[in-house]
Amino acid sequence: MLLTHPAFYTDFYELTMAQGYFLSGRQNEQATFDYFFRKCPFNGGFVLFAGITDFLENLENYHFKEEELEFLINKGFDSGFVEYLREFRFEGNIYSAKEGEVIFPNEPIVRVEGSIIETQIIETLLLNILNFESLIATKSSRIRQVAGERLVLDFGLRRSQGFGGIQASKAAVIGGLNGTSNVYAGLEYGLNVSGTMAHSWIQSFEDELSAFRKYAEFYPDSCVLLVDTYNTLESGIPNAITVGKELEKAGHKMVAVRLDSGDLAYFSKKARKQLDAAGLNYVKIAVSNQLDEHLIKSLNEQGAPIDLYGVGTKLVTAYDNPALDGVYKLSSVNGRPTLKISENVEKVTLPGSKKILRFFNADGTFNCDGISLLDEPEIESIHHPYLPGKATNVTGMKFVELIQLVVKKGQLSIELPSAAESAKYARNQLEKLNPEHKRFDNPHVYKVGISSKLRTLRDTLVNGKN
Amino acid sequence: MLLTHPAFYTDFYELTMAQGYFLSGRQNEQATFDYFFRKCPFNGGFVLFAGITDFLENLENYHFKEEELEFLINKGFDSGFVEYLREFRFEGNIYSAKEGEVIFPNEPIVRVEGSIIETQIIETLLLNILNFESLIATKSSRIRQVAGERLVLDFGLRRSQGFGGIQASKAAVIGGLNGTSNVYAGLEYGLNVSGTMAHSWIQSFEDELSAFRKYAEFYPDSCVLLVDTYNTLESGIPNAITVGKELEKAGHKMVAVRLDSGDLAYFSKKARKQLDAAGLNYVKIAVSNQLDEHLIKSLNEQGAPIDLYGVGTKLVTAYDNPALDGVYKLSSVNGRPTLKISENVEKVTLPGSKKILRFFNADGTFNCDGISLLDEPEIESIHHPYLPGKATNVTGMKFVELIQLVVKKGQLSIELPSAAESAKYARNQLEKLNPEHKRFDNPHVYKVGISSKLRTLRDTLVNGKN
Repeated sequence: MLLTHPAFYTDFYELTMAQGYFLSGRQNEQATFDYFFRKCPFNGGFVLFAGITDFLENLENYHFKEEELEFLINKGFDSGFVEYLREFRFEGNIYSAKEGEVIFPNEPIVRVEGSIIETQIIETLLLNILNFESLIATKSSRIRQVAGERLVLDFGLRRSQGFGGIQASKAAVIGGLNGTSNVYAGLEYGLNVSGTMAHSWIQSFEDELSAFRKYAEFYPDSCVLLVDTYNTLESGIPNAITVGKELEKAGHKMVAVRLDSGDLAYFSKKARKQLDAAGLNYVKIAVSNQLDEHLIKSLNEQGAPIDLYGVGTKLVTAYDNPALDGVYKLSSVNGRPTLKISENVEKVTLPGSKKILRFFNADGTFNCDGISLLDEPEIESIHHPYLPGKATNVTGMKFVELIQLVVKKGQLSIELPSAAESAKYARNQLEKLNPEHKRFDNPHVYKVGISSKLRTLRDTLVNGKN
Repeated sequence: MLLTHPAFYTDFYELTMAQGYFLSGRQNEQATFDYFFRKCPFNGGFVLFAGITDFLENLENYHFKEEELEFLINKGFDSGFVEYLREFRFEGNIYSAKEGEVIFPNEPIVRVEGSIIETQIIETLLLNILNFESLIATKSSRIRQVAGERLVLDFGLRRSQGFGGIQASKAAVIGGLNGTSNVYAGLEYGLNVSGTMAHSWIQSFEDELSAFRKYAEFYPDSCVLLVDTYNTLESGIPNAITVGKELEKAGHKMVAVRLDSGDLAYFSKKARKQLDAAGLNYVKIAVSNQLDEHLIKSLNEQGAPIDLYGVGTKLVTAYDNPALDGVYKLSSVNGRPTLKISENVEKVTLPGSKKILRFFNADGTFNCDGISLLDEPEIESIHHPYLPGKATNVTGMKFVELIQLVVKKGQLSIELPSAAESAKYARNQLEKLNPEHKRFDNPHVYKVGISSKLRTLRDTLVNGKN
């Protein structure tokens, strides 16, 4: 989705810093930034990378408009700098993991190279989009994991965090959902959209049976009846059965009943029995109401005969962990590697231009990832970032490089994938991640090591600053 | 902020229901819907209402565009219905509480009247915007409550949930923040924007002192130095002091130092001492890093000498409670009051067209709110929604009606307030809410009763459906 003001989708300090570089005559100095996150959300073992497509589309559209330049003039910005911004376009290089990739903490999954101004001022745009879409794609993949082959749809737009709801639905599909109620996202991203009725439809009729009959009249082959407006078992299901039998006589088949309140395990079992007893064993049961991966897992374990899950609030807001902690850190200036030191040792950043190697087991599953310097030849082992002596020999293992050129001198160098293509890629990649890393409780930490050369560079720089 | 496709910012079922009404020839039937929420977020005692301005602006712009109509045709919608949508404009009435109003659970703070189609299909747009902006304004007001008169700025854009970040910054200002780093929101809503430097600015120089000096050269009167890139107490503060003294000699005053990591209570105290010892007692201390109302309260209680708080992730995502549970329920059709019954008694809705009366104590503070039917004369007492015998006599109390006409026959009938005006209104209203309702731990529940006539109507309808 394109923003009206992509260049203004930024923290103010990007612009004060940019002006500082400009006024110092440093605008042609070269810089490299890395995007990475530090902690897997949901106490999980991985993140599904998403948002790069939306980011790149907005970057293509990135320039300062007249009213934006006026705003900056009024804020006291230097007129020479504002003229510089008038002509500004991003002309650097971007290397990125693919949308839908399985990624891990501290991996520099996006690397941005270019002038110190152009690499700096896109920071907030990049962080905002990648952090959020990756978060929701990850949550969605967890829901898919427990739902198995059942249909799962996103119904979250009414509770999503404002206009981020459009991106949430896309990320939900990348993560494995079958579709969404969100028509905007359907139009924007080509997602499957669906939906049937709210309680208000039922209430608008004198009685529930009339409401069901009228809906079935107009939608005889896509009839999903919401059965909990008044009394699920004594009114909703019996009326749905009446209409289901009438549809049968007219040569149609009712698709499903939907439960949206109460104990979904109890009601789905009762509903299944009533439907089956009436010969409507083909009518599916759809449920919704504050579902997440834990509730769906519990419903499955209780043997609830549910065919379709509608998920909303808990998915689109990533309710139990509503932000991914992705950051964007300077790793070199004019070829000089640099890092940030922190009061917390695990927040020290990795200096220099880096690549990520993903090593495979013989069966094609992921073994481990290694981060090395860009100009390093093949590496023999990867090392724990801090603990001395902890290393894994990777000699002879098959590997791929995880990040690839996507923008070359400001021009897109790949074809941007559709949501459906990214979803397919994500599904394939997740299959190669061993189950212990996908576990909900205490997942086994996937190994991400660094090359000895990178470790030496970092330690030398840290010592030089202390 | 205006959406490109406001009419498509909807759940699909709004459109299937609308088509059902259209094909039934019911498009001119009249309906009334209520917006209300059920539970205060953050275990708090109130909500600050926000979002109505953004909603009404999008509603003014609400019509179906050619590509949207084509999308619906391709989805199998009836061509007669699609032609109806081509001409569709919202022509109903909307009554609403003011942006920035203090509101409570179950109060119908927005009432929408009109044809059954127009009142239905705006549901998702309304819910999405009001739920999110009210949530963030409420969170922000809690932060303001503990921050007292200190400056508090929103730095959250990089972690906000996608493009909802634009609205988050506005709602944060309505709730009481002084400004934001979000330039887009600054342009869109006229908010104060500010910001200075990131760690990357420091890292881009050979050493920290050069970085500070260069910044001070360009921003001598708005100089805020980030002091934790390498070592806060041994390098950051001493270098800031050097630059502060140099600025003094040149006739300027450094504004502040900023701490963004580590123990903020400890470092702010140490920094204050070092600054004061150097004669820089006018240099303020700004802090950021995962702050929320609880951390700010704790820092205050520890006597941390902090002058400015930057809040981000925890505010803009409402991290500990990332959704408001607002709903939109049908309350009458063609003058016939209706309700939804639920498996949960507290989810039974209130039927009929209603108003909200706010009663005042003699000192001007809020006493209680009462919900009554629109055509009721003055009421003498308000009743607990369920417990018999629990009533409050309100005879003779001063009161106001909380919701007012804002859209009449599709036309805006008020001037929409700016964010600054809504912030001022919110501050004034919050002052009239007694402190026990604003407490963080177990706030005293503010009394919201219903008239006996409304209670009788509801109970009669419930009995009729059981």
